[in-house]
Amino acid sequence: MKNNFEFQNPTKLIFGKGTIAQLATELPKNERILVTYGGGSVKQNGVYEQVCQALKGFDYVEFWGIEPNPTVETLRKAIALGKQEKVTYILAVGGGSVIDGTKLVASAIPYDGDAWELVLKPSKIGKMIPFASVLTLPATGSEMNSGAVISNAEKQEKYAFFSSFPQFSILDPTVTFSLPDFQIACGIADTFIHVLEQYLTLPGESPLMDRWSEGIMQTLIELAPQIKADKTNYDAMAEFMLCATMALNGFTAMGVSQDWATHLIGHEITALHGTTHGQTLVIVLLGTMKVMREQKKAKLLQYGTRVFNITEGTDDQRIDKTIETTEQFFRSIGLATKLSELNIGKETITTIKERFLNRDTRLGEAGNIDGNATEEILNAAL
Amino acid sequence: MKNNFEFQNPTKLIFGKGTIAQLATELPKNERILVTYGGGSVKQNGVYEQVCQALKGFDYVEFWGIEPNPTVETLRKAIALGKQEKVTYILAVGGGSVIDGTKLVASAIPYDGDAWELVLKPSKIGKMIPFASVLTLPATGSEMNSGAVISNAEKQEKYAFFSSFPQFSILDPTVTFSLPDFQIACGIADTFIHVLEQYLTLPGESPLMDRWSEGIMQTLIELAPQIKADKTNYDAMAEFMLCATMALNGFTAMGVSQDWATHLIGHEITALHGTTHGQTLVIVLLGTMKVMREQKKAKLLQYGTRVFNITEGTDDQRIDKTIETTEQFFRSIGLATKLSELNIGKETITTIKERFLNRDTRLGEAGNIDGNATEEILNAAL
Repeated sequence: MKNNFEFQNPTKLIFGKGTIAQLATELPKNERILVTYGGGSVKQNGVYEQVCQALKGFDYVEFWGIEPNPTVETLRKAIALGKQEKVTYILAVGGGSVIDGTKLVASAIPYDGDAWELVLKPSKIGKMIPFASVLTLPATGSEMNSGAVISNAEKQEKYAFFSSFPQFSILDPTVTFSLPDFQIACGIADTFIHVLEQYLTLPGESPLMDRWSEGIMQTLIELAPQIKADKTNYDAMAEFMLCATMALNGFTAMGVSQDWATHLIGHEITALHGTTHGQTLVIVLLGTMKVMREQKKAKLLQYGTRVFNITEGTDDQRIDKTIETTEQFFRSIGLATKLSELNIGKETITTIKERFLNRDTRLGEAGNIDGNATEEILNAAL
Repeated sequence: MKNNFEFQNPTKLIFGKGTIAQLATELPKNERILVTYGGGSVKQNGVYEQVCQALKGFDYVEFWGIEPNPTVETLRKAIALGKQEKVTYILAVGGGSVIDGTKLVASAIPYDGDAWELVLKPSKIGKMIPFASVLTLPATGSEMNSGAVISNAEKQEKYAFFSSFPQFSILDPTVTFSLPDFQIACGIADTFIHVLEQYLTLPGESPLMDRWSEGIMQTLIELAPQIKADKTNYDAMAEFMLCATMALNGFTAMGVSQDWATHLIGHEITALHGTTHGQTLVIVLLGTMKVMREQKKAKLLQYGTRVFNITEGTDDQRIDKTIETTEQFFRSIGLATKLSELNIGKETITTIKERFLNRDTRLGEAGNIDGNATEEILNAAL
């Protein structure tokens, strides 16, 4: 462990079958609660019913309609409702988008200005309204971290910001059984790539963090075919849910360099085309691996050896094989691996290149991925 | 992940070179602080000076002399001082024993009865005084968990109890450079065995927790010769310090069965003979592995394969080789592996057997290690 670091994650995790009922004892009494929801799938899968049952006797108001890649436009309505109803606590019920959106709502209710200002300048966030979550889609890790990604539909922009942690999060794996296959695949991809963003950087910073990152990826590779065969396999879906939370709660990030170029480039594509986050990341990741292979050489070799058991050939051959095997893994779970498969081409690449050049964006663990390098990465992903 | 679980660990970890100075900003203002210390080694290694420097301007009183395997007899004096001085916050500066002892002090200052009652019946613990730590010896994980082990010298007893987590812990790896080789070896052993207590139980409960446990053990095995060669190797000592904290902070224990027979038997030996905790555990562990090999078969095979790369031969041969390799690892770091090397024999075994039979003790993940099985384990460790 070469580098100094600080770590704290206070979220209480309540994990397992039948745990939504525990809302009744975990939620604080005598609060005015805002319950935030997505588009309504919780009414089909029984989650809404369980939440209503647990909330009997609590004083609450509901807000519906936080969309995938939550927009500040929608969230402003939730914030207005929260202010009007003088809510003192928020419960997010949904996937990462609902929880991400709720983090902005919790920050903005006590704030006098417009919510988008907080996304652009999180240092303006003051005292937040405490919040908790019931997670329905394993992917983003938002249930156990302080980050959120918010879109601005009007400006076609999408940015990450950091505020505070959920007080508790309830994860009942049975609620994932009814998810569409594509959402599950995107969740697996998102989880896998969260790990790589914190791993595929400099070698030798922390042997333990490396092992823990590799452990999540090895587990996902073992789980993926089991989940494909039967998405109502409780043990497998529960383990995937655990992996998704552990992949972005800081547990594998202590004292190690981080990349996040793939995410930040992916956010641009989603902002412009509305493509699903996990699917978008897969395509960008493969481009990043190809273009940054020299800089990431030592870590790519370690990743190939330990995660895919690729040990034969020259370094270059092993890296080729490692990138190829990563692509095969994503194809095996049913995801596209090329921009052209999403009908995205040169025009989008030029737009993103220019945005990054205009903002003087420099991404990656070495801060050397500018607009031009981003163009190379996206060309390699065509 | 088959089992339901809850997880929460709120301790803030402040890790790295020069971090003791951060006490000045991390400690709350306007508190009356009790600073607890061990026997005085912090006066030789510069820690005391750094703490005093950081505490300038704070209102504090010192208590010295919390010993290894801290006794309630010593802690009663700290509790009396804390009551008399009306302290409102405690800072533990030392190894696991000082931090463990401080957990009892923090619990007992607001309590009217005798402190030993809280060890025997932790449900009597009410509101505790908040506390933090500066760690000087990586081993017990007490800096990031709520557990403590307290001895009663008069009764020759030693029990674990659970109270609450440090608010923050400062881990500066440079303070470990002056530790005696034997203490470092015992810390490595303690860490390794904490992992095994949470791992060497039932197979298939959580693939991810298994990988993370194996990851800590693989890292320790890589580090041990580096540390033996040069205990002022910062990166290696820092990684070991990180491993020790991560081995017993709940991160590898989510939803998995736990054993702890080795620890509970080891505590009895230490209570009777004052033997060092980590050294004692090594000897008991090897006995536990031998006697419980059928019950632990699947996990022993997985441990041998993944941690030591033992893949050839029949199951029985692989388990023999796995136990033998575990023993070699502990010998390689300079520890004894047999009771007879500590001059402990049949008489002690009979005493412990009788204690367990009298108390109807049943240890291990299956609750089937009684006094008689304990005798077998200790005979196998002679």
